[in-house]
Amino acid sequence: MVIAIIGSGAMGSLFGGRLKSAGNNVTLVDVWEDHIQTINNNGLIIENPTKRDVIYISACLPGDLQKPPDLMIIFTKTIHTESALKDVQSLISDQTTILTVQNGVGHDRIIARYFDRSKIIHGVTTYPCHILGPGHVRTEEEGTIKIMTLDGRHRQMLSDVDRLFNSAGLNCEITPDVTVAIWEKLAFNAALNGMTTVLRLPVGEIDRVDDGRDLVKKIVDEAVEVANRMDIAISKSRILSTVSMAFRAHKDHKPSMLQDVLSKRKTEVDFINGAIVREAKALGFSVPANETLYRLIKVLEATYLKKE
Amino acid sequence: MVIAIIGSGAMGSLFGGRLKSAGNNVTLVDVWEDHIQTINNNGLIIENPTKRDVIYISACLPGDLQKPPDLMIIFTKTIHTESALKDVQSLISDQTTILTVQNGVGHDRIIARYFDRSKIIHGVTTYPCHILGPGHVRTEEEGTIKIMTLDGRHRQMLSDVDRLFNSAGLNCEITPDVTVAIWEKLAFNAALNGMTTVLRLPVGEIDRVDDGRDLVKKIVDEAVEVANRMDIAISKSRILSTVSMAFRAHKDHKPSMLQDVLSKRKTEVDFINGAIVREAKALGFSVPANETLYRLIKVLEATYLKKE
Repeated sequence: MVIAIIGSGAMGSLFGGRLKSAGNNVTLVDVWEDHIQTINNNGLIIENPTKRDVIYISACLPGDLQKPPDLMIIFTKTIHTESALKDVQSLISDQTTILTVQNGVGHDRIIARYFDRSKIIHGVTTYPCHILGPGHVRTEEEGTIKIMTLDGRHRQMLSDVDRLFNSAGLNCEITPDVTVAIWEKLAFNAALNGMTTVLRLPVGEIDRVDDGRDLVKKIVDEAVEVANRMDIAISKSRILSTVSMAFRAHKDHKPSMLQDVLSKRKTEVDFINGAIVREAKALGFSVPANETLYRLIKVLEATYLKKE
Repeated sequence: MVIAIIGSGAMGSLFGGRLKSAGNNVTLVDVWEDHIQTINNNGLIIENPTKRDVIYISACLPGDLQKPPDLMIIFTKTIHTESALKDVQSLISDQTTILTVQNGVGHDRIIARYFDRSKIIHGVTTYPCHILGPGHVRTEEEGTIKIMTLDGRHRQMLSDVDRLFNSAGLNCEITPDVTVAIWEKLAFNAALNGMTTVLRLPVGEIDRVDDGRDLVKKIVDEAVEVANRMDIAISKSRILSTVSMAFRAHKDHKPSMLQDVLSKRKTEVDFINGAIVREAKALGFSVPANETLYRLIKVLEATYLKKE
């Protein structure tokens, strides 16, 4: 199978590197020239607490991708989904399957402008990974991947992708109700990413006072209400227990949205809290805590984005 | 009239200095020893864009105030109201009138534990003033003071205080519906102080995007709803026009609540957004935007207050 990873930051590199190590034909695609050049010259380093692999894998800029892939895995930040697809549009054929396990909700609609829904696999992953520098990523522990076709039908290519991942040591499972997992991660991110970003504080600080924990519950409540009205049976208690685990295990973690603000980059808030606000509005009700966070983060973004 | 200013930071010093200049017997009371010592040794400097006065006025610690005053003007931060009154409790008699034009809502109930309601004058002021250092304050422009007795009855002492202020060059007026002015300032502060504090950005940054201005409107809307249900006829359009003026004229201003967070001090949020939340709860409804801001600020406070 010819595989292209569209957007090869931390997660794209991890997935691409593992798939390549397992003997697949993989190309990493990204707009970060230093990263690409380093990978092509020296290989991609993937390290974890117990080992360090150097993987020789080809990498290129979006415009330089030549071969139409059988599988595109899109791993850009959610906000760059559309521009990334535009860049590789000429290589998309009826044979191309696309997979997204990006954060948030709403990007599947963007992907469906470029791909037939029967060719789209969506899902969610808990693999943690971060960039240490060009051509160098680090992962702390193993995670899971849950996938399903966007149209909800079992298809051969879904089983193929599942097998592909597992044979590369990536723990994947086909999950018919994957939207539950997607929305539970969304609710978790809305609470922790949203709050840490506004507060510009790591995860553990939210846990210091009742007001912090209460606000988490309120944000999750709102997300649960939206999901339930969309007939997505997400579980408040399951989300809150993941939050509690994060409070214990990831005290000092600065979620990606907070890192974006600290580095003055555009955040994914439109696909996190913003998505909850949009879906609620479409259903005719309001989610004021998410909306307040959303607007605060839009103001924060505006202070640095418009200045540039 | 023997006057004691309880809490002589920027505003207390400005009011005290002006009253002293006009020939009154005034003592500044504060817990900041450097400030007191400097004033006693060198006088109090009050400067504005056109002049600089040095006023010889006595200042002391709360425990050192000897003479029972006829008028106490309380100018501590709202959160320190109760502890300040405790400190001077032994000097409060039936003859003592107390005046508060402090920020926020809710401290009048605290004062009413120490004073008969007929002896309390409350109100609001727009005088801007800040501390430049011990014994040194600066004001940029003139403001207004609006006052009324807490029980709503015209009394001799109300006219006396009004005359006292005006004869010291402080623009005061008796305003029978002063709670309207108090709540309009509260709504203004809830929006601008609350938002700038969470965002840790000056006033003008909120004005950069629709989301910022929309959130201001939402916060003001909620305050208006609370006030109106309490039969306080505050005007949304009047508040929003004051906000617009602040966006234009005070772009770079960091409101006191933000300054408190930047200096890791306890903020007045319990008497601003927190007061709106409490009053709404008492009336049986919710004000989610104010509540979200309130909780975020409580988390921010907790990060530095508990650590000390």
